Amino acid sequence: MADLAGPAHREFFAVRTVAETLAGFRPARRTAVETVALADAHGRVPAEAVPAPHDLPGFARSTVDGYAVRAADTYGASEGLPSYLDVTGAVAMGRAPDVAVAPGRAVAMPTGGVLPEGADAVVMVEHTQEAMPGTIEVVRPAAPGDGLVRADEDARAGAELLPAGRPLRAQDLGLLAAAGVTAVRVCARPRVAIVSTGDEVVPPSTAELELGQVRDASAVALAALVREAGGEPDLRGIVADDRAALDAALRTAVAASDVVVVSAGSSVGTRDETAAVVAELGEPGIWTHGIALRPGKPTLLADAGGVPVIGLPGNPRSALVVFRLVGMPVVRLVGGMTDPPPEPSVRARLERDIPSAAGRLDVVQVAVRDRVATPLFGASALLSILTAADGYVVVPDDATGLGAGAEVDVTLYR
Amino acid sequence: MADLAGPAHREFFAVRTVAETLAGFRPARRTAVETVALADAHGRVPAEAVPAPHDLPGFARSTVDGYAVRAADTYGASEGLPSYLDVTGAVAMGRAPDVAVAPGRAVAMPTGGVLPEGADAVVMVEHTQEAMPGTIEVVRPAAPGDGLVRADEDARAGAELLPAGRPLRAQDLGLLAAAGVTAVRVCARPRVAIVSTGDEVVPPSTAELELGQVRDASAVALAALVREAGGEPDLRGIVADDRAALDAALRTAVAASDVVVVSAGSSVGTRDETAAVVAELGEPGIWTHGIALRPGKPTLLADAGGVPVIGLPGNPRSALVVFRLVGMPVVRLVGGMTDPPPEPSVRARLERDIPSAAGRLDVVQVAVRDRVATPLFGASALLSILTAADGYVVVPDDATGLGAGAEVDVTLYR
Repeated sequence: MADLAGPAHREFFAVRTVAETLAGFRPARRTAVETVALADAHGRVPAEAVPAPHDLPGFARSTVDGYAVRAADTYGASEGLPSYLDVTGAVAMGRAPDVAVAPGRAVAMPTGGVLPEGADAVVMVEHTQEAMPGTIEVVRPAAPGDGLVRADEDARAGAELLPAGRPLRAQDLGLLAAAGVTAVRVCARPRVAIVSTGDEVVPPSTAELELGQVRDASAVALAALVREAGGEPDLRGIVADDRAALDAALRTAVAASDVVVVSAGSSVGTRDETAAVVAELGEPGIWTHGIALRPGKPTLLADAGGVPVIGLPGNPRSALVVFRLVGMPVVRLVGGMTDPPPEPSVRARLERDIPSAAGRLDVVQVAVRDRVATPLFGASALLSILTAADGYVVVPDDATGLGAGAEVDVTLYR
Repeated sequence: MADLAGPAHREFFAVRTVAETLAGFRPARRTAVETVALADAHGRVPAEAVPAPHDLPGFARSTVDGYAVRAADTYGASEGLPSYLDVTGAVAMGRAPDVAVAPGRAVAMPTGGVLPEGADAVVMVEHTQEAMPGTIEVVRPAAPGDGLVRADEDARAGAELLPAGRPLRAQDLGLLAAAGVTAVRVCARPRVAIVSTGDEVVPPSTAELELGQVRDASAVALAALVREAGGEPDLRGIVADDRAALDAALRTAVAASDVVVVSAGSSVGTRDETAAVVAELGEPGIWTHGIALRPGKPTLLADAGGVPVIGLPGNPRSALVVFRLVGMPVVRLVGGMTDPPPEPSVRARLERDIPSAAGRLDVVQVAVRDRVATPLFGASALLSILTAADGYVVVPDDATGLGAGAEVDVTLYR
């Protein structure tokens, strides 16, 4: 217990705000570019903008069931004074038209059919009636371009189909498929090593605990958050609170990973030992040893030769709060995700006061029912508060709390 | 083209509203229960509530670095009049204490350590000072329970750790790990067959298109939405617009799947043929042939002996809008997801008017910048409108549009 007060080296590192951390902690590591098949590209991050290989849809295409016409032939048409057109053929789906549209003529069209030569509009079947076999009356005028999409209306050859940096969504995959892009160059998923520490920590599979032991709750939960941020978790097991063991485990992890996450321990002594080991992993080394965040102050951020090393608080709840706020953005940065997907949130009314100290950002877990947010208080060692929560409210650095009845933005878990 | 006006049988089916569809279309199919390992359980849906196998954390545990004490020994302690306690030992992390706390005594504690017998509080090291070797001064009183969590404070043996029906989130996995629950009984992922149709439709891998052909954009995009809804997509390829072929493909799909999704085609004729085939797949058959939704009116919903069959509009953009609004809820229903994750959304101001007809729900794609939503108009055949969109605005059934400047909820894509 001799180091309860902390060794002198901790004094050199200022505590940073969350905003400073998000803006300032930017290690150089980026993942490589790889090619994936379209079927595996959902959620992946294009490494470069994807251009259209050709015009889309590639031909002028009917958007209605009806008749291809020359718009000029329908000018002034009305119920009382319809235009009479001779139907000289029909376009079949998926086939080139075998007939053109001459003046005074019309060709029957299915939705999605190819506009025949000579035509510049498609009139809806609802705006026509059969006058006699082979002749229709058009009862409303059509303008050129009505009832069709142009050959390059969905995309022009060479135009940007999709931007770099934004994970591919369902509709993005659809547009790539339409364009015949069946392989995409994407940023490789960041490989994120998760190193657990603590003499009290045992694997989740431990059936019977000895008095004082706790199962490793953080690793599997952090792995889920790594996946949510587009990374590939690599659970590297539990390392004893021993400087040599930790040093060896972290050096291996840094060499093999794009991001390293390590439990920095619960007690001040363990945290300082972790910091001492992390400081030696590579240049420029420790960036901050402490974030103005509650829970989560004892967070350690380091840059080991470009590889971000994130030392999380020892208790799982604080670790998850910190990793959501500052760890997931680091994983996204390394993985090229410059335009991450939006987080679900809801405006709600606070059911009761949230006290807070100025100068730090407070993350308060809340349950939400009918747009009323109920703060869930309790020791930060309790994980059940997080599982009972629907989301969290952030009390900004400069506020001294939020009052009951205040309108707040709740970030929702999913 | 003889059936452009639609055969008589279509008249029997009323168009339903989206709300009626969500409330009323509930085929009986549910997936089986299966057991998955904790490491694979992220996003999976517990089939039943998960109880705590034992008290958590299982022992009274310090939440601070400090000293285990009898709270009564610190009553009235202050800077001016501290309580003097003899330190008789130290608790090591992960170990049972080898010393109890007698009156007038204290035991040094790391955060997370086991509370020794006799103690009922832990005083923070910051509230103590060393008076002489082996003796501390406590300068603030502690109440029983201060500085610790009780043995059952995270969960009592047998209490519900997690509810059924809510997909497992990161923190949920953490709590399961803490409790030693390494396998979870979950609802199997619904197997969702995706059948494409259309004589003009060719696989995305088709390098050169013949005039009139389009690549299948819907299937890969729908597969992504199926996964987002917790399902397992099963792409069954492209079936020709031929009644016998479609009938055979759909019968096989219904027999092998929990949900069947089929393109109901673009032209009225194709749609009616699809409806005729779907009507024969099983009892009670077609539930609606048409939803009061734009885009998406020509949607077909049927219950084939419990298996939901969803006939989507032929153009990919309409198909994706419909599948988000009414298809994903069906996949979640079949997969036991009674408490689905929240969707991201944002309040924004409309940049310009959105016209709409009363009596149908309009889904309008929007780009969002700085809380201003710009409607993206264009033919529903254009997929690029969806890829340019950040989300969509819903104009309710009873509204005749939304005015520029109106505050709207935008559901965001992710």
